[in-house]
Amino acid sequence: MTNILIATHNLNKRKEIKTLLKDFSNIKVLSLDDIKIDPPRIVEDGKTFRQNAVKKAVITSQFVDGLVLADDSGLVLDILGGKPGVRSARFARKHATDIENNKKLLKLLEKMDGEKRAAKFVCHITLATKGKLLENFEGVIWGMITKKGRGQNGFGYDPIFVPDGYNKTFAQMTAAYKNKISHRALALKQLKEHIQKYIN
Amino acid sequence: MTNILIATHNLNKRKEIKTLLKDFSNIKVLSLDDIKIDPPRIVEDGKTFRQNAVKKAVITSQFVDGLVLADDSGLVLDILGGKPGVRSARFARKHATDIENNKKLLKLLEKMDGEKRAAKFVCHITLATKGKLLENFEGVIWGMITKKGRGQNGFGYDPIFVPDGYNKTFAQMTAAYKNKISHRALALKQLKEHIQKYIN
Repeated sequence: MTNILIATHNLNKRKEIKTLLKDFSNIKVLSLDDIKIDPPRIVEDGKTFRQNAVKKAVITSQFVDGLVLADDSGLVLDILGGKPGVRSARFARKHATDIENNKKLLKLLEKMDGEKRAAKFVCHITLATKGKLLENFEGVIWGMITKKGRGQNGFGYDPIFVPDGYNKTFAQMTAAYKNKISHRALALKQLKEHIQKYIN
Repeated sequence: MTNILIATHNLNKRKEIKTLLKDFSNIKVLSLDDIKIDPPRIVEDGKTFRQNAVKKAVITSQFVDGLVLADDSGLVLDILGGKPGVRSARFARKHATDIENNKKLLKLLEKMDGEKRAAKFVCHITLATKGKLLENFEGVIWGMITKKGRGQNGFGYDPIFVPDGYNKTFAQMTAAYKNKISHRALALKQLKEHIQKYIN
């Protein structure tokens, strides 16, 4: 049995990752609440998802045994030069609510149509152990930003994102369905295919 | 039987895509050489892989029946602000050889170590029909740029890219192996899971 610690304080992300990894019988998934020591809280000041995820995973893995998994993710729009990007959670302001962030994005895109509303959700996952980076995985799902919010499920920009090939926003899908197709699911699917080599 | 046209003039990419799609019994994979009409040659002037792939797929699909698949892909380094990016094939100069491009990149990274040599290969695939965009897929594989080239297989930056979790460069792997783990394989795996809904 190998421990894998999910180094995120974000409850929603943690829940999604735990659900997506639950079918591994030889891995015990832990979160920061499950361990006795309290690794330093990492400042997410990277310019890219990778920089943040690597920092979180590598530093945290110096303080715990076993594998550490860190996630950094967000929404990226080409038309906005990559924004909200690494600032997805604090796009409107520091400690912004999801509603504030969604509102700001809709306002910025107010006069834009078609291809200009294209957006991708990116999830970067880094696996580390004993202060050493092991592997990185990235999941991407493309879609369109709606004209207004729809749906009550999910979190973040889910109410205003319709993935390509669908009519529903992420927030209109059940958690179980979103967990099958999301950027986080795509990244974790890759992790699952590669993680066995790090398990005793 | 549905036709799917691969809208790329790049022989290497076309070969990889054909190989990766060969197990579909209800899809006939065609390349630009297989069709009678000659769709306009698209100028790849997009700022992102997506912009180029969408342009190629959508415009080409106005001239042929069935589905059209376009690919845009390349190497991205955070330390270089995303370069070589959409200019991967012409990084050193217009019509540059792979050797020239590799040499330029190695020179730029000469004094850099560790995390600074991190790079990802990105493959963006767009599916379109009758001038209409259907869906986008993106595959990403992270790795490190070596200090010098190794291996004879593959093309582009393959000799100087070692994917995370491996010791070999892409150019040291067999085509069959690279086709299992590459960015293009990851994008096409998603395409395969979604394409059935567009097939009569």
